[in-house]
Amino acid sequence: MINIAVLGYGTVGSGVVEVINTNHASINKRAGQEINVKYVLDLRDFPGDPIQEKIVHDYSVISNDDDIKIVVEVMGGVEPAYTFVKEALLKGKSVATSNKELVAKHGAELLAIAKEKKVNFLFEASVGGGIPIIRPLNNSLTADKIREITGILNGTTNYMLTKMANEGADYDSVLKDAQEKGYAERNPEADVEGYDACRKIAILTSLAFGKQVDYEDIHTEGITKISDVDMKYAKAMESSIKLLGISKKADGNVYAMVSPRMVGKNHPLYSVNDVFNAIFVNGNVLGDVMFYGSGAGKLPTASAVVSDVVDAVKHTGTNIMTIWEQEKLQLGDFGDCKNQFFVRVAKDKEAMAKELFEIAKEVKCEEVSGEYAFVTEIMTEAEFSEKAAKVEAISSIRLA
Amino acid sequence: MINIAVLGYGTVGSGVVEVINTNHASINKRAGQEINVKYVLDLRDFPGDPIQEKIVHDYSVISNDDDIKIVVEVMGGVEPAYTFVKEALLKGKSVATSNKELVAKHGAELLAIAKEKKVNFLFEASVGGGIPIIRPLNNSLTADKIREITGILNGTTNYMLTKMANEGADYDSVLKDAQEKGYAERNPEADVEGYDACRKIAILTSLAFGKQVDYEDIHTEGITKISDVDMKYAKAMESSIKLLGISKKADGNVYAMVSPRMVGKNHPLYSVNDVFNAIFVNGNVLGDVMFYGSGAGKLPTASAVVSDVVDAVKHTGTNIMTIWEQEKLQLGDFGDCKNQFFVRVAKDKEAMAKELFEIAKEVKCEEVSGEYAFVTEIMTEAEFSEKAAKVEAISSIRLA
Repeated sequence: MINIAVLGYGTVGSGVVEVINTNHASINKRAGQEINVKYVLDLRDFPGDPIQEKIVHDYSVISNDDDIKIVVEVMGGVEPAYTFVKEALLKGKSVATSNKELVAKHGAELLAIAKEKKVNFLFEASVGGGIPIIRPLNNSLTADKIREITGILNGTTNYMLTKMANEGADYDSVLKDAQEKGYAERNPEADVEGYDACRKIAILTSLAFGKQVDYEDIHTEGITKISDVDMKYAKAMESSIKLLGISKKADGNVYAMVSPRMVGKNHPLYSVNDVFNAIFVNGNVLGDVMFYGSGAGKLPTASAVVSDVVDAVKHTGTNIMTIWEQEKLQLGDFGDCKNQFFVRVAKDKEAMAKELFEIAKEVKCEEVSGEYAFVTEIMTEAEFSEKAAKVEAISSIRLA
Repeated sequence: MINIAVLGYGTVGSGVVEVINTNHASINKRAGQEINVKYVLDLRDFPGDPIQEKIVHDYSVISNDDDIKIVVEVMGGVEPAYTFVKEALLKGKSVATSNKELVAKHGAELLAIAKEKKVNFLFEASVGGGIPIIRPLNNSLTADKIREITGILNGTTNYMLTKMANEGADYDSVLKDAQEKGYAERNPEADVEGYDACRKIAILTSLAFGKQVDYEDIHTEGITKISDVDMKYAKAMESSIKLLGISKKADGNVYAMVSPRMVGKNHPLYSVNDVFNAIFVNGNVLGDVMFYGSGAGKLPTASAVVSDVVDAVKHTGTNIMTIWEQEKLQLGDFGDCKNQFFVRVAKDKEAMAKELFEIAKEVKCEEVSGEYAFVTEIMTEAEFSEKAAKVEAISSIRLA
């Protein structure tokens, strides 16, 4: 029997306990021994709930108990999670976490401590909820050099964009609907401004290229400027608008960005709808692969956390190699990054647009008048933003 | 340095050597040591090719060399692959193979030998080419009870069905095209009759449910009866026709089958086109996930084989647990399996069809006349085939 402690009895934490209870026989078989939840750390009490007898309010009870071999951290936020996780690793306990802020900020350091202590720091649930992506990047795509990772990494915004596309609704009304359904927070900033996706693409980029990527370095745009008119153009272009986290190797640099993009109908991400997430990876020998599934939700996320617990049990005494060095990866300059842009300008700017831009394609949309819309040839961000300002673009969206 | 031998210098074998050469630095870093191809077994010689100096014609050279720690088997077919692989494992060498016939037939036994000898028998490339699916099933979806696996497992037939759907071409002409492009063999039986997909779903079912599934027990239908008229109806139903391998837990039984299916546009497999493969998995806590990518091809398949080699190196001296017992899994009776069916009958059988079947939906297709087409309610295979015979159905296709 192996004893574990769960830090935080919120949505994911209670999900972890539920998954371990529901599938205990098959999980124990996979792990090779029985997994027992000995403590649950929470500030609250849960009178009447069977979990109450395991509740502790003081982390030192867990930290000082040598019986606890694995700590599950599902509190979220950097502190006190970081202090608790670091202490656990230093005391020779493995850690499984769903905490993207913690992993994005301190992943490299925590992995180094785990390696030194011959334990494991695992974080499958920090990106893509239940979708296996961290473990495949670490253990499956080992024959490849990764050239690109592009992901729909935030379920809330994908739900909103899907609803805007399907129902012709505007941004404000879909946000309100998402809040009513509990998909979006009262303060939706982390989702709609792309901050959540930014931390996730930072983690994936660090793993793909082996060095620390600071999420503050990643140019991030959210979906707040996407309008129902943009959606009409997207339909005319047989595209869907998705909030994508992208990191890409080009000209010897790694470029990373979060922004809405026009995704053409032949791209595997085109039809990833509602709250689903998907991560597209291109390897230099493998070509394209995509991983698709529930990017959030209590049980899918808990499933990923518990799979990490099983992996930690199976690798007791051995560190699973994860290449993510503390050395910082200097991303390529945002201004040098090359993209194609869909652009809308007022009708009276048509001549100017044609003069300024190399136009790959004009876009007609019957439902919109008084505008001239087009797709540019590939150009740098710096050049684009200069010209877009001159022509007073109504809106612009990068192509995927 | 770790020495390996490659059995077979065909498409995949030469791909394995190419991948190891192309990405040697990153592969060696991931493996933790240098991987050296010491021998390549092939009946042929390759004068002028740098591989020639590694060519051996006699397997005993490899088998008897204690320096060889890993054998890569990419010859295909059951014999002599089985004899060679078994001998390697018994001599304490790990094996990585892309050989679906071998794995489907002898996987359980070879895994047991590997376990006993504390080495590894790995077969990521045997299903879905470069798509990571075997390792995720073994190591990622460990918190779940699998309820369903449904896959587009054969690229050749998916290419053909996509072309029929997009171009309105008939079966014979797309087969000819696929043969000319080298996607289909001169004798296309293994692909178009579903035999290839059958072996792959047998492997996935064995892994998902932990016991040996004999592929001979799996009801298998190919795509040879799919006509351009069926495709017209599919379009009218906003569906695509895909050859699917399905295994599913229902009423305490596991049912497995290979057959063409109507896939509705909201299903993640709907838009998997051309030679791409995808495997959809449903777990009891995870919900739906899908893995998508190149299901065949020299380099994608070689990428998967080499990822197994890396895994074998990292797990030198330890057996990676794979739950696939030699005990046979008794599949549920095909006749008891429940499905919904799309059915076409001659116009003069309409009244009879309405009498015989519970009809869920009538299907209108402007381009077809003289027929009555409908979708049944869910019913057993036994009941369906009896009634379909009575009504002399022109064609029938299951719904996904």
